[in-house]
Amino acid sequence: MIATRSIDLNADLGESFGPWRMGDDRAMLAIVTSANIACGGHAGDPETMAATLAEAKARGVRVGAHPSYIDREGFGRRVIPMTPDEISRMVACQIGALMGAAALAGVQVAYVKPHGALGNLAADEPEVARAVARAVHAVSPRLALLAISGTELEPAGREAGLAVYSEVFADRAYLPTGRLVPRRQSNAMIETVEEAVARLLDFLETGRMPALGGGAIALAAQSICVHGDSPGAVAMARGIRQALTGAGMTLAPFLP
Amino acid sequence: MIATRSIDLNADLGESFGPWRMGDDRAMLAIVTSANIACGGHAGDPETMAATLAEAKARGVRVGAHPSYIDREGFGRRVIPMTPDEISRMVACQIGALMGAAALAGVQVAYVKPHGALGNLAADEPEVARAVARAVHAVSPRLALLAISGTELEPAGREAGLAVYSEVFADRAYLPTGRLVPRRQSNAMIETVEEAVARLLDFLETGRMPALGGGAIALAAQSICVHGDSPGAVAMARGIRQALTGAGMTLAPFLP
Amino acid sequence: MIATRSIDLNADLGESFGPWRMGDDRAMLAIVTSANIACGGHAGDPETMAATLAEAKARGVRVGAHPSYIDREGFGRRVIPMTPDEISRMVACQIGALMGAAALAGVQVAYVKPHGALGNLAADEPEVARAVARAVHAVSPRLALLAISGTELEPAGREAGLAVYSEVFADRAYLPTGRLVPRRQSNAMIETVEEAVARLLDFLETGRMPALGGGAIALAAQSICVHGDSPGAVAMARGIRQALTGAGMTLAPFLP
Amino acid sequence: MIATRSIDLNADLGESFGPWRMGDDRAMLAIVTSANIACGGHAGDPETMAATLAEAKARGVRVGAHPSYIDREGFGRRVIPMTPDEISRMVACQIGALMGAAALAGVQVAYVKPHGALGNLAADEPEVARAVARAVHAVSPRLALLAISGTELEPAGREAGLAVYSEVFADRAYLPTGRLVPRRQSNAMIETVEEAVARLLDFLETGRMPALGGGAIALAAQSICVHGDSPGAVAMARGIRQALTGAGMTLAPFLP
Repeated sequence: MIATRSIDLNADLGESFGPWRMGDDRAMLAIVTSANIACGGHAGDPETMAATLAEAKARGVRVGAHPSYIDREGFGRRVIPMTPDEISRMVACQIGALMGAAALAGVQVAYVKPHGALGNLAADEPEVARAVARAVHAVSPRLALLAISGTELEPAGREAGLAVYSEVFADRAYLPTGRLVPRRQSNAMIETVEEAVARLLDFLETGRMPALGGGAIALAAQSICVHGDSPGAVAMARGIRQALTGAGMTLAPFLP
Repeated sequence: MIATRSIDLNADLGESFGPWRMGDDRAMLAIVTSANIACGGHAGDPETMAATLAEAKARGVRVGAHPSYIDREGFGRRVIPMTPDEISRMVACQIGALMGAAALAGVQVAYVKPHGALGNLAADEPEVARAVARAVHAVSPRLALLAISGTELEPAGREAGLAVYSEVFADRAYLPTGRLVPRRQSNAMIETVEEAVARLLDFLETGRMPALGGGAIALAAQSICVHGDSPGAVAMARGIRQALTGAGMTLAPFLP
Repeated sequence: MIATRSIDLNADLGESFGPWRMGDDRAMLAIVTSANIACGGHAGDPETMAATLAEAKARGVRVGAHPSYIDREGFGRRVIPMTPDEISRMVACQIGALMGAAALAGVQVAYVKPHGALGNLAADEPEVARAVARAVHAVSPRLALLAISGTELEPAGREAGLAVYSEVFADRAYLPTGRLVPRRQSNAMIETVEEAVARLLDFLETGRMPALGGGAIALAAQSICVHGDSPGAVAMARGIRQALTGAGMTLAPFLP
Repeated sequence: MIATRSIDLNADLGESFGPWRMGDDRAMLAIVTSANIACGGHAGDPETMAATLAEAKARGVRVGAHPSYIDREGFGRRVIPMTPDEISRMVACQIGALMGAAALAGVQVAYVKPHGALGNLAADEPEVARAVARAVHAVSPRLALLAISGTELEPAGREAGLAVYSEVFADRAYLPTGRLVPRRQSNAMIETVEEAVARLLDFLETGRMPALGGGAIALAAQSICVHGDSPGAVAMARGIRQALTGAGMTLAPFLP
């Protein structure tokens, strides 16, 4: 019997730029229930935001802002040295940019999830977590925060007065500490749909995620992060959705 | 006797970028009553927006968004080929970005004035004017629009349901058609404070602005645009403020 | 019997940027004999240039610089207002950037072909053509110029003292004037490999390219431009190569 | 008696961007004998490069490339995570870009000096130093390398086969280790012309630079780095030049 009966699937989308495509947003928007949309920092531009917002609206997918370091060349995966206050200001501008695009598209931005290196730093560093949370709350206290489960961003968001939701990763291995196995390690990725599904069903039933070394770690999550930046990733996301619904789960946005 | 008893002074501010300064924003924010703040298109970045917003707040200066073509190298003074819908999306994102920064700074963005080549095209081309007005209204119907007096942006803004205010230029010569003498002509600029002040006082009394050739053109305006991108420009702006207050005018934002 | 016994195939390559891929450069570098490599203006960056140069070197493909307006969002397909001297300076910097990357990769840049809107303007406007040719010659008089056959860039290049070579398009329809049918028209593109091959073989035999309306126009060309930015485009390029070699043509760089 | 009879003054120039000015390049080009010109990474663009090159040529000032992390917002003062090979490719492209501009301006690029955070990392990290030196040598073995005296870049350059020259700073305090006092410390800067001149004359006579704590460190240098990014900085540079010539020194490029 599965303890959790409803779960959200989220993915990073709207990560094209100008003439360049990233992933298959249309396919992914038929799979996920929440879309983290790039805000022009690591990816995205007014045209990409508008197209992604329109498709999310048509599919009934919840929309979140996905702010990042301003670093297209590095796709937001490099830490750019910045003070916490600089991070707050950068994040506020990016959330605002997506909210502007969303207003034009007739969609509401419901939450914020920091991207890439910024997300990782906000997971580890309380000062960065608070800088992100402060910016989100200032832009609108009605925005929720989507954090990696078990990280510093969760308490920082709550202290700032935000509703905080948490995610686990479908395709990433966990350390016994609860943190992700770094990407550069060979065993960082869950490679097959079967393994990903088995782990997720286990987690959803027990609230414990298998970790390297054979143990399991207790994590709370209202959302599962899937990826869509390759054909294989889309297939895995689709397989996960089918397996979860086949197991009797309802897929629905973490935010009503 | 001066017919108009209260007038606004506006200037384009927040046009620094990264390590580079443009003009003397602190000096200008002690002179003007409304500040058109760059949104990251032709100039501006999160740090510049935040600093300008904080200073405007401290000075009680009204804040507007100053969206532009995305063209730092050309400072937004070059027409970049775009469709009206592309312009709407670009403008919505830029207004949003400034609103995000303003929320963090505890300031409200009250109006929008398009910059440079975009402003000129919106003055002349009904399609572009409507694209700008549509974006402003979508982002927030409470935003006002600040248009060059006598241009296409005025009816476009009203048709979109926006409050529209109009500006005249303190330091630019007018053609008998009511349009500005192009910058490339030698007689485009009003060079001395004395001449600028005389023209403005004349306009504020009669509602008619002197034009090349000796005539005058009827214009409505709630604001006077001054510039601050050189020491001479700041001195002229200060001189105009002193002359207007000396003539018994009240300087106040066009928006209450 | 085919009059021309050796011909070059060129394509625009190295048009990825940061994390984003454009086309299938590896596949195309197994097909073409000359590669026009983006220089960071409309596309390309140091990593993309280096990877494309290394693959071109491994394949024995000739390398040219493909400078453009500085316009990633528009992929260099929009005319950015610039003076001829500004164009010269922009082109010189971009050729230099690719030459720097090429020196590090142990490859020589052999020619220059302007991209997109800059290429089209250089085809039509003698001033722009001369600006491009002047920059190429200044950077190195040993660089050749690859021009669209029958355009202003050919005489401009010769007057500047450059070796000039000309190209026809495999997949674009021609007007009776010798210019390309604009892309926005429905009949602008040659859709099938069969039609493209038939036209090219006809042209290579007769020196005359079929034009809209049933006639044909005399064109000189040492190279055929193919595209590779979609799977269909790669298939067409491969089909053209096979048909030309099947007809007894030798495919070789236009520059020895 | 002064042991060294001829010395070079170098400064970072060409650091404007688009509409924004940085420092007073014209004033500085009347003072220095070598100009490190920004290559579009942290600052500079084709127009700025061309203007700076033309003025350097008119003044007989030697020209060097001043490559940097690609980071305009941070002016190249932030470390952007990159591998040594990525650094090589970035540096090669930037040197090439300036060489393209220089060819058009009829000037020769004679040397390379890495900027800001890249320069600091190349001073400390042998891998980064070798990456920079490798790129310089690949672009042209005739380019010299200008290194901070006593740093890792000196041996890296020599091992790469480059002519290496070294600089000391006129306006920065030194630690007893020979490294600069970090900018964030209150005693990092030499504030007055008198103190800077006294230190430099002392150094030029003895080959030893005064260090914090009262000692002095042996340094070799063929060039003195001065700054020009503020009116005070220009005045100091001018004062240093006058004092050096007054003391019988010849000011001349470190490269003949």
